[in-house]
Amino acid sequence: MSKNVLIIHAHPEPKSLNGSLTGVAIAELEKQGHRVQVSDLYAMGWKAVADAADFTDVKEPERFSYVRESKHAFSTDTQTLDIAVEQRKLLWADAMIFQFPMWWFTMPAILKGWIERVFAYGFAYGVGLHEGVRWGDRYGEGMLAGRRAMLSVTIGGRLPHYGSRGVNGSLEDLLFPIHHGILWYPGIDVLPPFVIYQADRLTPDGFETLANEYRRRLRGLFTDQPIPYRSQNGGHYDQEQVLRPELGAGVSGFALHVLQPGDPADARPEPKKIHEGETTNA
Amino acid sequence: MSKNVLIIHAHPEPKSLNGSLTGVAIAELEKQGHRVQVSDLYAMGWKAVADAADFTDVKEPERFSYVRESKHAFSTDTQTLDIAVEQRKLLWADAMIFQFPMWWFTMPAILKGWIERVFAYGFAYGVGLHEGVRWGDRYGEGMLAGRRAMLSVTIGGRLPHYGSRGVNGSLEDLLFPIHHGILWYPGIDVLPPFVIYQADRLTPDGFETLANEYRRRLRGLFTDQPIPYRSQNGGHYDQEQVLRPELGAGVSGFALHVLQPGDPADARPEPKKIHEGETTNA
Repeated sequence: MSKNVLIIHAHPEPKSLNGSLTGVAIAELEKQGHRVQVSDLYAMGWKAVADAADFTDVKEPERFSYVRESKHAFSTDTQTLDIAVEQRKLLWADAMIFQFPMWWFTMPAILKGWIERVFAYGFAYGVGLHEGVRWGDRYGEGMLAGRRAMLSVTIGGRLPHYGSRGVNGSLEDLLFPIHHGILWYPGIDVLPPFVIYQADRLTPDGFETLANEYRRRLRGLFTDQPIPYRSQNGGHYDQEQVLRPELGAGVSGFALHVLQPGDPADARPEPKKIHEGETTNA
Repeated sequence: MSKNVLIIHAHPEPKSLNGSLTGVAIAELEKQGHRVQVSDLYAMGWKAVADAADFTDVKEPERFSYVRESKHAFSTDTQTLDIAVEQRKLLWADAMIFQFPMWWFTMPAILKGWIERVFAYGFAYGVGLHEGVRWGDRYGEGMLAGRRAMLSVTIGGRLPHYGSRGVNGSLEDLLFPIHHGILWYPGIDVLPPFVIYQADRLTPDGFETLANEYRRRLRGLFTDQPIPYRSQNGGHYDQEQVLRPELGAGVSGFALHVLQPGDPADARPEPKKIHEGETTNA
């Protein structure tokens, strides 16, 4: 079935490996019958810095708060056009691909600035009922729920340095703040990333192998299993949003927030059973 | 003893809590007799995007590589002046404080862009002999060794959400890519962070308590114990830069890269003992 895919591309050189991979993605996705849009952040001259110029009607100029102005601007439609356009692309998309080089163990600043400006209050956070035991619609729920995303990341370093005991920290953990904190937060299902190590050592033959592997991943964009993060409101966390003591045995670090084999996706206590004929005052 | 301290400040509003904390830091550090410089990134209009405009003599314009141009520009002194000035401040500094709000579980884009542009090849990476079993001077060695840094971070969310089992992932792990991957990488010793939760709920009384706590931390800037990260070339990692199997028992995730109680700081095998009177051909 034909779907909509948004590629958010963050690399300054079109002839780079990142540029080639986005080319592969566009061709493969269109071949599958999908519609593709690309936000090429460097080419667009994307404004990376979140500041008062993002709002056409600043409510509290005497003491500027990005969060409060974001809330006001999103709800009154007074964001700048560049932000609103990207939000519309996200709502249009069934899936997003983030194509970027790993710089200092995370995304480039231009892409981080895209997140900060586009992921507005009321759009990607501050969504849903937020009171009592509930902390809003986040981590599995939110305005972008039902969509999926995949990071496609090029890395200069070597794989063993990013393994579970590698000197840089494991790639899985390094990407967690993006996967879980940025994508899963507003409800997006996150696929395992497509990763290239020693990106600057790639030969032409190596590129063809890689491009085929990437095409294979792109064909699975709507069918591969996402990373099974726990959902905030699925019963895994207590009232303080701390993982319940009976969950995550033998695990520590970020891995705690991924479902373990045998864990129910929905860990909410079963509703009280009511015997036939009985009534309840609840 | 009088020292030099650089505060890298990344918040758009001078009247914000971040602004007040930097004010507290300047006053307290000067009271201690230190010299203070502030890089106020928003006020400076810091260019956040790393691109070809960062180099006054682009060597390969036909296929631009930030890494290769950074190497060329740093070694030939053809970086733009704004970058060179910040590097000089870092070399001047005995300690750095990074003052910023946590946005999407990491630093603001403007600060990430400062890292990407100022932490040049030959300055903060690509330093030292890089061959055979050695991967250069990084993780404890490098041009910024002998310096210390502390993050001062404001967070909108609540502490339990950032605890070891909190829904956001633990703060310690969320900050690891900055602490270890950005600061320890070029050799900087990293102090435990100064962190404020529910930053937007602070009362005036709350601020005074907080400011006193911050002053106490600032008085320990040159004496407090840094986080004991393992050094890359200290014998903890094997030739593939994977943590040796006998280390880190019972630990997983990023915590593997912190010395455990009983671990030697220098885990290199002892040099072969030579009996008195013996000679060696080695």
